[in-house]
Amino acid sequence: MKTFMDKDFLLDTKTAVELFHGTAETLPIIDYHCHIPPAEIAENRRFNNLTELWLGGDHYKWRAMRTCGVPEQLITGDSPAYEKFAAYAKCMPYLIGNPLYHWTHLELRRYFGCDLILSEKTAEKIWELTSEKLSSPNMSVKNIIKQSNVETLCTTDDPADTLEYHSLIARDASFGTRVLPAFRPDKAFNAGSKGYAVYLEKLGAVSGIKISDIDSLFCALEKRIDFFDQFGCRTSDHALDGFDCFVRPSAATLSAAFSRALASDGGISHREALEIKAAVMSFLAGEYKKRGWVMQLHIGTYRNANSEAYSMLGPDTGYDCIGVTDIAAVTGLLDHINTSTGLPRTIVYSVDPTKDAAIGTMLGVFQDSGDGYPKIMQGSAWWFNDTLDGMRRQMTSLAGLSAIGKFNGMLTDSRSFTSYPRHEYFRRIFCGMIGKWADEGLVPDDTEALSRVTADVCYYNTKNFFGF
Amino acid sequence: MKTFMDKDFLLDTKTAVELFHGTAETLPIIDYHCHIPPAEIAENRRFNNLTELWLGGDHYKWRAMRTCGVPEQLITGDSPAYEKFAAYAKCMPYLIGNPLYHWTHLELRRYFGCDLILSEKTAEKIWELTSEKLSSPNMSVKNIIKQSNVETLCTTDDPADTLEYHSLIARDASFGTRVLPAFRPDKAFNAGSKGYAVYLEKLGAVSGIKISDIDSLFCALEKRIDFFDQFGCRTSDHALDGFDCFVRPSAATLSAAFSRALASDGGISHREALEIKAAVMSFLAGEYKKRGWVMQLHIGTYRNANSEAYSMLGPDTGYDCIGVTDIAAVTGLLDHINTSTGLPRTIVYSVDPTKDAAIGTMLGVFQDSGDGYPKIMQGSAWWFNDTLDGMRRQMTSLAGLSAIGKFNGMLTDSRSFTSYPRHEYFRRIFCGMIGKWADEGLVPDDTEALSRVTADVCYYNTKNFFGF
Amino acid sequence: MKTFMDKDFLLDTKTAVELFHGTAETLPIIDYHCHIPPAEIAENRRFNNLTELWLGGDHYKWRAMRTCGVPEQLITGDSPAYEKFAAYAKCMPYLIGNPLYHWTHLELRRYFGCDLILSEKTAEKIWELTSEKLSSPNMSVKNIIKQSNVETLCTTDDPADTLEYHSLIARDASFGTRVLPAFRPDKAFNAGSKGYAVYLEKLGAVSGIKISDIDSLFCALEKRIDFFDQFGCRTSDHALDGFDCFVRPSAATLSAAFSRALASDGGISHREALEIKAAVMSFLAGEYKKRGWVMQLHIGTYRNANSEAYSMLGPDTGYDCIGVTDIAAVTGLLDHINTSTGLPRTIVYSVDPTKDAAIGTMLGVFQDSGDGYPKIMQGSAWWFNDTLDGMRRQMTSLAGLSAIGKFNGMLTDSRSFTSYPRHEYFRRIFCGMIGKWADEGLVPDDTEALSRVTADVCYYNTKNFFGF
Repeated sequence: MKTFMDKDFLLDTKTAVELFHGTAETLPIIDYHCHIPPAEIAENRRFNNLTELWLGGDHYKWRAMRTCGVPEQLITGDSPAYEKFAAYAKCMPYLIGNPLYHWTHLELRRYFGCDLILSEKTAEKIWELTSEKLSSPNMSVKNIIKQSNVETLCTTDDPADTLEYHSLIARDASFGTRVLPAFRPDKAFNAGSKGYAVYLEKLGAVSGIKISDIDSLFCALEKRIDFFDQFGCRTSDHALDGFDCFVRPSAATLSAAFSRALASDGGISHREALEIKAAVMSFLAGEYKKRGWVMQLHIGTYRNANSEAYSMLGPDTGYDCIGVTDIAAVTGLLDHINTSTGLPRTIVYSVDPTKDAAIGTMLGVFQDSGDGYPKIMQGSAWWFNDTLDGMRRQMTSLAGLSAIGKFNGMLTDSRSFTSYPRHEYFRRIFCGMIGKWADEGLVPDDTEALSRVTADVCYYNTKNFFGF
Repeated sequence: MKTFMDKDFLLDTKTAVELFHGTAETLPIIDYHCHIPPAEIAENRRFNNLTELWLGGDHYKWRAMRTCGVPEQLITGDSPAYEKFAAYAKCMPYLIGNPLYHWTHLELRRYFGCDLILSEKTAEKIWELTSEKLSSPNMSVKNIIKQSNVETLCTTDDPADTLEYHSLIARDASFGTRVLPAFRPDKAFNAGSKGYAVYLEKLGAVSGIKISDIDSLFCALEKRIDFFDQFGCRTSDHALDGFDCFVRPSAATLSAAFSRALASDGGISHREALEIKAAVMSFLAGEYKKRGWVMQLHIGTYRNANSEAYSMLGPDTGYDCIGVTDIAAVTGLLDHINTSTGLPRTIVYSVDPTKDAAIGTMLGVFQDSGDGYPKIMQGSAWWFNDTLDGMRRQMTSLAGLSAIGKFNGMLTDSRSFTSYPRHEYFRRIFCGMIGKWADEGLVPDDTEALSRVTADVCYYNTKNFFGF
Repeated sequence: MKTFMDKDFLLDTKTAVELFHGTAETLPIIDYHCHIPPAEIAENRRFNNLTELWLGGDHYKWRAMRTCGVPEQLITGDSPAYEKFAAYAKCMPYLIGNPLYHWTHLELRRYFGCDLILSEKTAEKIWELTSEKLSSPNMSVKNIIKQSNVETLCTTDDPADTLEYHSLIARDASFGTRVLPAFRPDKAFNAGSKGYAVYLEKLGAVSGIKISDIDSLFCALEKRIDFFDQFGCRTSDHALDGFDCFVRPSAATLSAAFSRALASDGGISHREALEIKAAVMSFLAGEYKKRGWVMQLHIGTYRNANSEAYSMLGPDTGYDCIGVTDIAAVTGLLDHINTSTGLPRTIVYSVDPTKDAAIGTMLGVFQDSGDGYPKIMQGSAWWFNDTLDGMRRQMTSLAGLSAIGKFNGMLTDSRSFTSYPRHEYFRRIFCGMIGKWADEGLVPDDTEALSRVTADVCYYNTKNFFGF
């Protein structure tokens, strides 16, 4: 029986131990996709306690608490900080098998040197111990990032963003981590959403272009892409929510649909919205390609599925779930991009894990880089799927259908500053998987070759794929 | 090498053995969802042989026999009882890896003290041995239930049912198991099916209300819900077959659609049928909520898929399979219920296991009980999925996406009186899974904490969730 | 730690070793579905080097190379043969976990007696060694097939094919393997495709019937079925690509749709195309049934998804992927066939593994052979799914939902003459799985019974199901 979360956590074979401790463990982190606020890095924010650090905005934890029957008052309400933390602690025993269980204890160990098991009984002791540690300047945001060995991180930013905090961060010579923006233009193509016209006005203002038709939208977006590029931006991100049909953009209908979208503020048909989305995505893709950016596509989410909760708490509060994806529509869009503006390097993530096989086979269809790296890759097990089992399944699928040795590995996708142990978690799982293959005689026992693949997946592939 | 089905069957680790034999094994059974006929309990039915007990109505076994090429004559035909049993016995070696293989041998062991392996060779000996045992009063239906340690069981009953057998059963003071009805109003909302008008007439008659519009239907249903409630009913069940789109009920169209459904006997459009279904489900949900009932939803079945066999043998004879489910439509319905009449405690089951992840994420969207238990849970691996592998995958998925410690565990969903070892099977699988986690260092080796979760999942969660 | 690919490769238990080496290993191979060109068998083709043998037409390998960033010049272009091979060798370390990794090394071991690990370092040595072996007459196509212990193999042939090479092969008395045609009439029912009229003209010419309406099409097909039957044909194959809706054929619309398909060369609606497909499939199925043929159905492929690559390289060059399947539509078609012309023995394969459970449950719906074998079976893990993990999952699913002991086992589906070790790979995986069940006490440790099932799955079931 292995001790819980000891130094060989998830490493069940000799090879796994060698690969992790010999290669993966000390590689720098490139966190190429996350949602931490650049302002808080720039301001080098500090936290008073675990409630601020963990429960301020992490909807993973909120959902778990709600599931365990914790009243909302103790989650997003105005209960005292310690009571909220104690409520979370009380849920822990029910969360075995959930990544929160491992993340929570990894963070306690790595950032607080605390190997207690969080529960009702230990809540108070852990609260005191961690509050004390958090009072030290070592636990400022920049110092957390520094001690986490993060070489590069990409935040997620709207095209209309001024990127002023990125400037501020870059000016701090004592802070070695590169903090780059990532271009997230969803609001510019969600033409069926309320607020579209208002958003385009804002985008027009910041780019100095009056957006009155789709060509002026393209013009404005190009300006913003150039602006982001000047800040070292290497990647963009897009949520293709509700993408259940690929509608090929047609000159005959596109400009009328766009005019109506502007005039009616979202009052267009689903089909018209899909046509505009395909047209804007194609334009953007071509621009990314010109600049060597990586295009990230996230598919399959059903957002704000609880309309009552949404009206009270707004978006990103734990009310999203898996929706409908038509993977053939995504394939159709990629083919259209490829033949019209040109497909840039691309990463596809699905929140619905049952699309993994379809994505795995779709990758093979668009590979043509000829430069030693894939043109298109599947992203790591996304959002709800970054469980132990989910990551293993995604990587097993990718290995079977594509080339695992060319995989870009982990990202946090997180709003939390102490989420970097998820990279450790991933690396342990990866090394554990490869080690098991070696142990079972499925791959040759050639530690040198396996180490090279490990280093590639945990670090070098991402560095080269994105051009960091 | 472990011996087949020994006392530590499915328990591969020290912790698994402790959890099962120390905690799970002796807990009472709450079988909150099954299809055994209350008349046979009331009459305390006896069986002459295994063919009557096993092959009289179990379409799992019929399907397996058909797959192995057994002629229908020996399945549902009029062949002699022993020949039918012998035909089943002959199939057994081909059924390794199928739950029937384990259920069959668990039942032989638990109810007949027989540890022979069923096959062509042993069929006769097993037939004799079991026929003798069945001749004892110990093997009456009530005694089987008693020796199975069943505390509470819920049958499945139509709103128009008189529940007379439930009265009879309740009057037998010597029979300690609580036998409660469960409300199954499918016929009241399947407005697109032939016989709808006839059914509503029957429902109207039993509730003393003439059903001429949707409001009088609601009125009649409310009366029957009250009637069931008086019998201690705590739960309802609904099959959302072919639910491929959520149509929001609209006052403008609903009453016309309902009138047409009554007048035409099923001659309405698919869309109209979906609108009526959504309207009736919303009404019912609100009534359940008022009374603290649990609403069970079963999705994804394609019924009577072989029309030739259906015309000969009727429903529930083994000709159902997995159909199409739109999980976003279910999410839309639940959101509509939540904002209109109010969502009661709910359990969602999918016959299509590829919906597990979507359901797991959907759970988090509707949790707001605030009372220490979830508002909505996924049901255990349903119907075709209650295989060893299916149950492990369902629980791994649920653990990763929700809170396994709040799971309601097993139910038999069975038409058979000797199906209770399926609870034992489940408990062994659960303890096996948790034990493996402990053994691999994925959870702390804290037997007390793990025992508590085990007891909750195997018994207490259901007791509290349903309020038994 | 096990040695890579030693004699007990994939056999982790005593029982697995016994089942494989004692039973499975030496059974003949029936490769009832493949795509090798009969002309090359008749001509007893020889290969100059591994590039000709492996990289001439194998789009699995092409896709892997493209994914690793190899330029197309070195894949389908005119680079020198050795450079192409070296490029493939360089990709190998990235392909761990992909079946190509195992197939490649199994083929090196079995046909070339070479146990080197292919990589950049060993490429030259392996090239020399294999080129020398290939220069021997032992490595002619017929001798490869002979030494692979292939008893029967079925090629895939168009109804308009003259089968002249099959005649030639049959005339060679020194070649013991039976090489039979398989009837692949896709072009006869894909009425929505360009070239339909041209194809029907060709089909009409070869069958001596002018095809002017659907009845004359049926007439022509019947003639060709009889022709194939004379060559010992026992099976047919059909790709139901894009089969997203079952349209019940109607006398009222069918002949008009067919006339339009002939007149317009593909210019019919998707719905019309589906109606014609259902009508032709039903006719064909009835004919197969009369002759005791097995009908194979392949579902779920999205073909030629990269239109740019398709325009340059044509079909079957690695640009297919998983598309949309409506399993309920397939069920509807089978029910229609069953009640109209009669369902023959059938095998269903899905390129989308998420349909496995739905197929597993659908099987039970149509079983009625009554002759000791199933009427309908799931095919082995198809195309992209014949990975280690994919085969295990498909068989676990089938065992849980149907009867694994009645499974027909493996086929190569390959264009390569050295792909027979895939049968060995399958057999090892099967024996490994059963052995593990025995080791864990999930099945009785009865080697005799398990050997019988093993022999059935690896050889006898196929022999009897197809009537070879």
